[in-house]
Amino acid sequence: MAERWATFGIDLHLDPRGPGLRRGLTDALREAVRGGRLAPGTRLPSSRSLAADLGIARNTVADAYADLVAEGWLTARQGSGTRVADRAAPGRPAAAPTPRRTPGRLPYSLMPGTPDLASFPRAAWLRATRRALAAAPHDAFGYGDPRGRPELREALAGYLSRVRGVRADPEHVVVCSGFAHGLRLLCEVLRARGARTLAVEPYGLDVHWALVRRAGLETVPLARDDLGTRAGDPGDADAVLLNPAHQFPLGGALRPERRAAVVEWARRTGGLILEDDYDGEFRYDRQPVGALQDLDPGRVVYLGTASKSLAPGLRLGWMVVPPWLLPDVLAHGGGRTVSVVEQLVLAEFLSSGAHDRQVRAARLRYRRRRDALVRALAERAPHVRVTGIAAGLHAVLELPPGTEQAVQRAAVWQGLAVKGLDFFRHPGVTDPAGDALVVGYATPPDHAWNGTLEALLRALP
Amino acid sequence: MAERWATFGIDLHLDPRGPGLRRGLTDALREAVRGGRLAPGTRLPSSRSLAADLGIARNTVADAYADLVAEGWLTARQGSGTRVADRAAPGRPAAAPTPRRTPGRLPYSLMPGTPDLASFPRAAWLRATRRALAAAPHDAFGYGDPRGRPELREALAGYLSRVRGVRADPEHVVVCSGFAHGLRLLCEVLRARGARTLAVEPYGLDVHWALVRRAGLETVPLARDDLGTRAGDPGDADAVLLNPAHQFPLGGALRPERRAAVVEWARRTGGLILEDDYDGEFRYDRQPVGALQDLDPGRVVYLGTASKSLAPGLRLGWMVVPPWLLPDVLAHGGGRTVSVVEQLVLAEFLSSGAHDRQVRAARLRYRRRRDALVRALAERAPHVRVTGIAAGLHAVLELPPGTEQAVQRAAVWQGLAVKGLDFFRHPGVTDPAGDALVVGYATPPDHAWNGTLEALLRALP
Repeated sequence: MAERWATFGIDLHLDPRGPGLRRGLTDALREAVRGGRLAPGTRLPSSRSLAADLGIARNTVADAYADLVAEGWLTARQGSGTRVADRAAPGRPAAAPTPRRTPGRLPYSLMPGTPDLASFPRAAWLRATRRALAAAPHDAFGYGDPRGRPELREALAGYLSRVRGVRADPEHVVVCSGFAHGLRLLCEVLRARGARTLAVEPYGLDVHWALVRRAGLETVPLARDDLGTRAGDPGDADAVLLNPAHQFPLGGALRPERRAAVVEWARRTGGLILEDDYDGEFRYDRQPVGALQDLDPGRVVYLGTASKSLAPGLRLGWMVVPPWLLPDVLAHGGGRTVSVVEQLVLAEFLSSGAHDRQVRAARLRYRRRRDALVRALAERAPHVRVTGIAAGLHAVLELPPGTEQAVQRAAVWQGLAVKGLDFFRHPGVTDPAGDALVVGYATPPDHAWNGTLEALLRALP
Repeated sequence: MAERWATFGIDLHLDPRGPGLRRGLTDALREAVRGGRLAPGTRLPSSRSLAADLGIARNTVADAYADLVAEGWLTARQGSGTRVADRAAPGRPAAAPTPRRTPGRLPYSLMPGTPDLASFPRAAWLRATRRALAAAPHDAFGYGDPRGRPELREALAGYLSRVRGVRADPEHVVVCSGFAHGLRLLCEVLRARGARTLAVEPYGLDVHWALVRRAGLETVPLARDDLGTRAGDPGDADAVLLNPAHQFPLGGALRPERRAAVVEWARRTGGLILEDDYDGEFRYDRQPVGALQDLDPGRVVYLGTASKSLAPGLRLGWMVVPPWLLPDVLAHGGGRTVSVVEQLVLAEFLSSGAHDRQVRAARLRYRRRRDALVRALAERAPHVRVTGIAAGLHAVLELPPGTEQAVQRAAVWQGLAVKGLDFFRHPGVTDPAGDALVVGYATPPDHAWNGTLEALLRALP
């Protein structure tokens, strides 16, 4: 038998009586193609003749050929038999691929917006994955409810009620692919209902404003004063997007009388409040700042995310939607973008207490960093005032007037990537808030923290 | 010490000299609240007085209180001290939740569109998750490339080239949340470029047409004749959406001369072809039908999905985008909706060979079902012609004229959910293709297959 196979140059080592005959034949042929022993274009014997050679059933050979055709290793065409595929060295297109861009990255970063990625709880996440995969019913792997898996909506409703004071019924929770996805969905819904303008905080993220504009809404910045955003007066906007618990990037909490005023505005005008609660888990002082949604769940959409408490790469977010708005949200696609496996893992993570543990550990580490930052500034840059530090993952360092650009350049010289406050200013804001740096102190991994802090201190005036 | 704690009714079992003091205190208090021994509203002693009672540092108590405030078990307000939170029984909103709708589900289903969900490879997926989580660099957990993880784009490019003949450069692969998400993204891009109409197959899925309309494009059905969709003549449409390898639901492959004609149309008019290759892995005959994209990667967007080869619940899809169109696709959000963990797991699944094994096993099982279906029909319903069976997860059963509705009703009486062909007809089609059932033979779990087939046979005329 080995002699006959010599026409292929393959040593088959097949046991024609074993149960794994078809698989063995398939594997051996695949390896021969992959390894180059069967060159592209080589014509294989007919299944009838090979079966006769090997003394096995013709179907076994035909099945093995069919598997390899379907996998792309072989081709079969009427009249020209079965051949090794031309593209037998897979993966590379004819054209040379574009070289990967590797921008000159700086060694240190205090860019705000991400937690310490090195502390993602890989082992706990894997344990939750094991339990979630074992417990999932078969039909969980289907298309499913556009709001998301019931296990996760139930776990989120409990968690948000307990930790953030959100009035959340699992029936009105919609799982989505992070905050930006939820915001886009809501803007599409608002636009379809005839809305034109969304009032936004005067400082925020340009990527969010761009996304709102793409959905067909104009963004209009709210006014601000010494007490923060004047959220109570969105004028004739159709809706308003706010960070009531911790403004990004300025860092304050929305004052109680302004919370009440914006809810009153929404009730009076039929407007909608979009509450972006991006880092509500991270408060360092004992004064809790609950969700604004609690004041009127009929006029507020609450939006949360795992991007700060776990990692942005999970692309996991959630909304608590007023019942009257839910049909529109679902008609626009709802949350049908998130893997059910990941949804079940997060549900398990929340209900097992692993999420509380992760947040507690992260909060402790970030608070220590915040305290170290504040202490170091008091010692070495006492003229720099720090604000916005009661919560979250970033602080605002107020700089002498006219120095923001120069300090950013000095930071680059120190190998440090950091953003100035002006980057976050809405183009419609005409009275800027003064020079400052927005320092994301959660960003560096632990081992780089001391070096990063030192680079910052050296860059300050 | 235990005596003093009696005011709480808690037995603390604390070792004030141990390293886990803060955690022990936090855990004990949390359990007391959770278990109801500390009732909502109960005022706790000040951290100073409790610390003195326990003979430990005041900070330890304050930290434990702060943790529990942040977790929502306690509240702390200026002037009223620390209390047990009112919502200490978390999870349930004040209003009674809407009762879950449990529609009267039929015991058997041949609804097309899903693989057998019971055969999702949970163990292999978990193994791939373990390896992916162990190997991922820290920065994988950040916001990342809008096209998706490079590991997955590389693995997909190799796989699609090998199995489907797609000319795929990893630089032009965009990961997305399944076919529908990719289609919506492309329609938004087309609309922003001024497109008005998308030509579609005369039979297809209404949810896709609705999604196209929401993105601002009109859908216009292509004509068809005995040889299938007349894809070569999209008229003055701006783009055309096709299933070249296996039409859904009619089941044929687009004929070579029509493939050439539609590519010629695209070149001549600047039109774009969207190739929906939803079940390209499942061919049962040896004649391979490669991707249309191979004819002109500059005029075709190739779209694939894991919904049929693995499970719809993964919400995983991919596009191979012409280089000139890529910036627009990324400007509209690209694929930033898919968990990096899941992307890395699929990359591992593809490159380890687990995906090939899964598809091979599924193909064998589905082919056996298809063969059993064809045999059973030949025996017991010889007047019913079966078509579209060379590939995929469904077959078309041609019925006597005027019987489609009646057969569907008869199926319901047999406990069987199945769709008639007319459900899939585009509203613009005026010459219907005749009465038929679209039978998704991959849908039932193995244990239900025989009963399902029997129910179908009993429902047929």
